[in-house]
Amino acid sequence: MAEAEAGGDDARCVRLSAERAQVLLADVDTVLFDCDGVLWRGETAVPGAPEALTALRARGKRLGFITNNSSKTREAYAEKLRRLAGPPAPKAYVLGSAALAAELEAVGVACVGVGPEPLQGDSPSAWLDAPLEPDVRAVVVGFDPHFSYMKLTKAVRYLQQPSCLLVGTNMDNRLPLENGRFIAGTGCLVRAVEMAAQRQADIIGKPSRFIFDCVSQEYGINPERTVMVGDRLDTDILLGVTCGLKTILTLTGVSTLGDVKSNQESDCMSKKKMVPDFYVDSIADLLPALQG
Amino acid sequence: MAEAEAGGDDARCVRLSAERAQVLLADVDTVLFDCDGVLWRGETAVPGAPEALTALRARGKRLGFITNNSSKTREAYAEKLRRLAGPPAPKAYVLGSAALAAELEAVGVACVGVGPEPLQGDSPSAWLDAPLEPDVRAVVVGFDPHFSYMKLTKAVRYLQQPSCLLVGTNMDNRLPLENGRFIAGTGCLVRAVEMAAQRQADIIGKPSRFIFDCVSQEYGINPERTVMVGDRLDTDILLGVTCGLKTILTLTGVSTLGDVKSNQESDCMSKKKMVPDFYVDSIADLLPALQG
Repeated sequence: MAEAEAGGDDARCVRLSAERAQVLLADVDTVLFDCDGVLWRGETAVPGAPEALTALRARGKRLGFITNNSSKTREAYAEKLRRLAGPPAPKAYVLGSAALAAELEAVGVACVGVGPEPLQGDSPSAWLDAPLEPDVRAVVVGFDPHFSYMKLTKAVRYLQQPSCLLVGTNMDNRLPLENGRFIAGTGCLVRAVEMAAQRQADIIGKPSRFIFDCVSQEYGINPERTVMVGDRLDTDILLGVTCGLKTILTLTGVSTLGDVKSNQESDCMSKKKMVPDFYVDSIADLLPALQG
Repeated sequence: MAEAEAGGDDARCVRLSAERAQVLLADVDTVLFDCDGVLWRGETAVPGAPEALTALRARGKRLGFITNNSSKTREAYAEKLRRLAGPPAPKAYVLGSAALAAELEAVGVACVGVGPEPLQGDSPSAWLDAPLEPDVRAVVVGFDPHFSYMKLTKAVRYLQQPSCLLVGTNMDNRLPLENGRFIAGTGCLVRAVEMAAQRQADIIGKPSRFIFDCVSQEYGINPERTVMVGDRLDTDILLGVTCGLKTILTLTGVSTLGDVKSNQESDCMSKKKMVPDFYVDSIADLLPALQG
């Protein structure tokens, strides 16, 4: 009982011991995972992660994956865009990958702009005179390694039409790779477009609850019997708290215990919310609770 | 007397009539101008601007130009960078124009990175393996039409060295051109780098008072007898207020009377400061006060 209470508001962010993990997992039907920084980093699995997933499945837990990167997520983006834009079939200027465009196309959103877009012309007015596609009704900003000033210029020109939507897939500032390395995240690109366009993007990914509502609707999830496992306080853990899930921070990715402490001590309510119920060094720490 | 008082704190942002302009100019030795959106837009002079400058000079006023764009400004950037970095001669990774690099080189700051930088390799780890220049001690972000994700990646890699400085030339979100057109400003690029690097840039341009202190030191300016004329509340007018200058907003550029009203009504002190003493539709409005 004392252990179960340790996850309450009075003692947040306690280390998830094997005993506490057993109590927690008994109360849970569904385990939602973030992927980058939790299950893998770059191309490398977190040691013990595959075994932990297998053991959770063997215990009859339903597993879900809520990432700001996956194709599941892209379907959600497409769905949101369709809802926002309504008929007729919308066309989007996509700052993002071919995969994101393919998901959008699959649900009837025509996409333009994918791939490199070098500077056209040698003066500001030449850049502004580059042709635009007709009937673009949304600018969708995702992770775009071909992001360029020319793309920023075009995005802002589309957005001067007040009816043109600005959608960001997420606001992550970094994407963690192996060995503590990282690359700049989608949030950096969204922020640049927002600042130039003087508009705020509609963010679909975590921590927006839209993405949980999609999963929840499709799979019938009881928030009280669900735990969210993630490596970021400002996306994964905040999503869990917002949606009334139990939360576990794993330290293999972006956020640290120092970040948790700083949020706990903050006098800003929005920061105080970004504290998990439990933390683990790695999701491999769940294994002892799942053995025997 | 009533007219002179109209510029006081109780009645800010009053239209600068010919009579008021005469009173104001009698109290002033130096007139500092922002350029883009004030004297010209894109390649086109604001009608009446050349005549107004000529008439001010004829009245014995000293004119100065404080822009987040000019070569004067670039000298100030270079000076600041030299002061910040100290000996030995620093090397900078420059997200900016060849002109900015030339100004930096002229004061002994070696520059790398100017020009296009396409994506190298086809995976995040390949991007991170692209070679870096040795001994880069600062990342300088200016207006860079060749801004790209690859440049963002390199900038962030240099900035992982805590001793590497992050310097932004300004935080302008837009650069005004002719006919109400505009392009994305340097601030959008600085913000993207700041967010990925989790660092705050040292901003040299307006509204940082560093730029006024440089001009003031070199030319011996008395703030009380100086007026700042600009088109942006958050740079030009804020600079003027911060440095104790008289301030005139001209409506040929970025900010509007609506923006002034919104700042006046804000309960945020930092916004309340961004209100000019006077406004004019265009600096051509100064001409009647200067005739005869």
